[in-house]
Amino acid sequence: MSKANVPYKIYLDESEIPSSWYNVRADMKTKPAPLIHPGTLKPLKFEEMRPIFCDELIRQELDDDTPYIRIPNEIQNFYKMYRPSPLVHAVYLEELLGTPAHIFYKFEGNNTSGSHKLNSAIAQAYYAKTQGLKGVTTETGAGQWGTALAMACSFFKLECKVYMVKVSYEQKPFRREVMRTYGASVTPSPSMDTNIGRKINAEHPGTTGSLGCAISEAVEVATSTEGYRYVLGSVLNQVLLHQSVIGLETKAACEKYGIKPDIIIGCAGGGSNLGGLISPFMGEKLRGEADYQIIAVEPASCPSFTRGKFAYDFCDTGKVCPMAKMYTLGHDFIPSANHAGGLRYHGMSSILSQLYHDGLMEARAVEQTSVFEAAEMFARVEGILPAPESSHAIRVAIDEALKCKETGEEKTIIMGLTGTGYFDMVAYEQYNNGTMTDYIPTDEDLAKGFATIPNVNL
Amino acid sequence: MSKANVPYKIYLDESEIPSSWYNVRADMKTKPAPLIHPGTLKPLKFEEMRPIFCDELIRQELDDDTPYIRIPNEIQNFYKMYRPSPLVHAVYLEELLGTPAHIFYKFEGNNTSGSHKLNSAIAQAYYAKTQGLKGVTTETGAGQWGTALAMACSFFKLECKVYMVKVSYEQKPFRREVMRTYGASVTPSPSMDTNIGRKINAEHPGTTGSLGCAISEAVEVATSTEGYRYVLGSVLNQVLLHQSVIGLETKAACEKYGIKPDIIIGCAGGGSNLGGLISPFMGEKLRGEADYQIIAVEPASCPSFTRGKFAYDFCDTGKVCPMAKMYTLGHDFIPSANHAGGLRYHGMSSILSQLYHDGLMEARAVEQTSVFEAAEMFARVEGILPAPESSHAIRVAIDEALKCKETGEEKTIIMGLTGTGYFDMVAYEQYNNGTMTDYIPTDEDLAKGFATIPNVNL
Repeated sequence: MSKANVPYKIYLDESEIPSSWYNVRADMKTKPAPLIHPGTLKPLKFEEMRPIFCDELIRQELDDDTPYIRIPNEIQNFYKMYRPSPLVHAVYLEELLGTPAHIFYKFEGNNTSGSHKLNSAIAQAYYAKTQGLKGVTTETGAGQWGTALAMACSFFKLECKVYMVKVSYEQKPFRREVMRTYGASVTPSPSMDTNIGRKINAEHPGTTGSLGCAISEAVEVATSTEGYRYVLGSVLNQVLLHQSVIGLETKAACEKYGIKPDIIIGCAGGGSNLGGLISPFMGEKLRGEADYQIIAVEPASCPSFTRGKFAYDFCDTGKVCPMAKMYTLGHDFIPSANHAGGLRYHGMSSILSQLYHDGLMEARAVEQTSVFEAAEMFARVEGILPAPESSHAIRVAIDEALKCKETGEEKTIIMGLTGTGYFDMVAYEQYNNGTMTDYIPTDEDLAKGFATIPNVNL
Repeated sequence: MSKANVPYKIYLDESEIPSSWYNVRADMKTKPAPLIHPGTLKPLKFEEMRPIFCDELIRQELDDDTPYIRIPNEIQNFYKMYRPSPLVHAVYLEELLGTPAHIFYKFEGNNTSGSHKLNSAIAQAYYAKTQGLKGVTTETGAGQWGTALAMACSFFKLECKVYMVKVSYEQKPFRREVMRTYGASVTPSPSMDTNIGRKINAEHPGTTGSLGCAISEAVEVATSTEGYRYVLGSVLNQVLLHQSVIGLETKAACEKYGIKPDIIIGCAGGGSNLGGLISPFMGEKLRGEADYQIIAVEPASCPSFTRGKFAYDFCDTGKVCPMAKMYTLGHDFIPSANHAGGLRYHGMSSILSQLYHDGLMEARAVEQTSVFEAAEMFARVEGILPAPESSHAIRVAIDEALKCKETGEEKTIIMGLTGTGYFDMVAYEQYNNGTMTDYIPTDEDLAKGFATIPNVNL
């Protein structure tokens, strides 16, 4: 590529914000396995999902065929409040590394929720509102999803009940307070408000909670409260659909300026960011129109892609949710306390799991001290303080750029920079003080998690 | 104005970032009073300022005549990392208020320092670097300036020593940690490292510090350390010069889209944001080319414009700095613990003080609960969580828009939204919990501060 006419920061015009989401399933030869009912083991039907999810979102969840789904005007208008997000040419990082590679990052942190999560939160709140619902429930780990949903609900005047993993609730009081400022109620999970919360508290006294457990509580409250539904910030097909706005904008910016990516890199927890970023590029790959090296990056402490099993598993600890086929470490797997709260989920999006299984993308696991080394390097030259989650992608982008330095290849690397780290300064403090540790689960640790994966043969 | 062709968010192109700063002093009939030496009471000369400030910055400080000063390429390139900042049409706030007024805000929070402070920090770091210095010292209250300077120094590989008001250092550990992540050293002030710090600690055991005291420490260290100079984030003429980039971009955006402001509103602590925002508009007003209503907003707890005296006073508690003529509450005035740390300075920019004295702008003092009410209202509809400082401007913008609702006037209001409130969640928590209080100093309280203003007759 020629760098000459590429601005440092590419902002598309408002008129270039996509008017449809792209549904990568439409181009997948092997479709992602459907959600199944844990009792019958049959694929869930529309009617069976209605007590949990909003109607229109179920339609999106089940639609494996429509390639483009129109973004309602109300959502497009909300997108204009913080989109298009910039695609930034990381010239200072390139200079620091002395690499011939061209590095770009799609920065999703320029909104108050601090991450890409708002892209789906506003869509889900909108569909809940148009269905005439009173409110929604959800869980949050690191707090990015909860914050995004609180903002979205406040905008559409919906009630919002957030179950926040207890350890985060206690360690991140400011995250909690942002949600409250946007009018959400925030409850530490496991709580004593729900059957499943009381059960988990009784079985594991003093537990600091997990995402799987908070999901169970949020689903229980949604299904037992009049006018409420449950919404989820990752993993589901509908979420990847909404997040495709990231990839569509990235692709539009690339085409506008003649940027041809060789490698696309994103962090992967449940897969919302990575799935959204890569969707339109993967579509081209699936249709044989282009080829890209696509890399998912996960923490070595929670390695669902690189060391997990591809199997049907429960999405939550309490087993109140449908089962999904995915790369999983087992629904009872508890990752060590690494700081990328958004990447601590035991499973992975069914779409991405299928694509990975089919050899259409790769995965890398990285350790957190090396992630924070990359984060600080990036922050100091690029001026953005990245979230720990996003910094996983930075780590691998730097690694790939350094490989280019060795080989002399002038590859173009695009990475997803999902958000900012303002609420993660405890982690940075540990890194700055040299007290951060790494943790890689042993095969025995993993075996315990795998033992909880149900034996489903379909 | 016609709203039809105005985008929700106006982003200028990179090529429209100003290539010169505008020096409003060039158009002032009555120039701001010069800094004077506290011993001789004579205006400070270039040579006398050299031990404290960088050479080029002194030239800018003393230059009352050159209207446009070229922005060096290195600074323009850094500006491209986060500028142009958007001028946003607050359509949702207008809708909520039901006002015929048009409200726009210039949002300076989309960078990691979280505020406009970076505009001057990068300039000051650049001039320090080109002078061959080893490092700089500074003070920080709320932490926005310290963070901005840490980022700027990291970019130019300069050492950075920050003296942080002790109460902030303790209450805002995350702010401190961001500065450390950018490689700065952060010391709570008053410290035991300096003569003035030891003196203040001895005289006021257990003191939690003040900005005036932190300034004294930073200046002492700069003047006693080889290869170091002191830099300041507000008050000085040079800072307002650099911050004119805010106003120049705002004006360019207005001209591009046919927006004609009637009222321009900014919060004022030392005056850096307000001065920068209004400079080019004030220039037109001074030259008789246009008229604007310009409103400075300050906290009722620290009302330097609305209740202060226009007099020469010390800029710092330790009296190690030059004296400036300004609206002041007295250099020993200690404002109550309001949450807008950036607005707690006892004095005010000499430029703004002169303009205010000459009737070219007005000032309002507002109480903090009403400020947080405005902040939360704004956050919920506009999706940006504003800093407490910025929210002072929001309060008055809302008040003016509501006046338009009564009168039916279709005024166009522009306000400076200086930054984000992610590190101010303790304040939001108090507001959310209903435990926030207001404080307005009595005339007796003010009299104590006034008694410390030296009697200078020039």
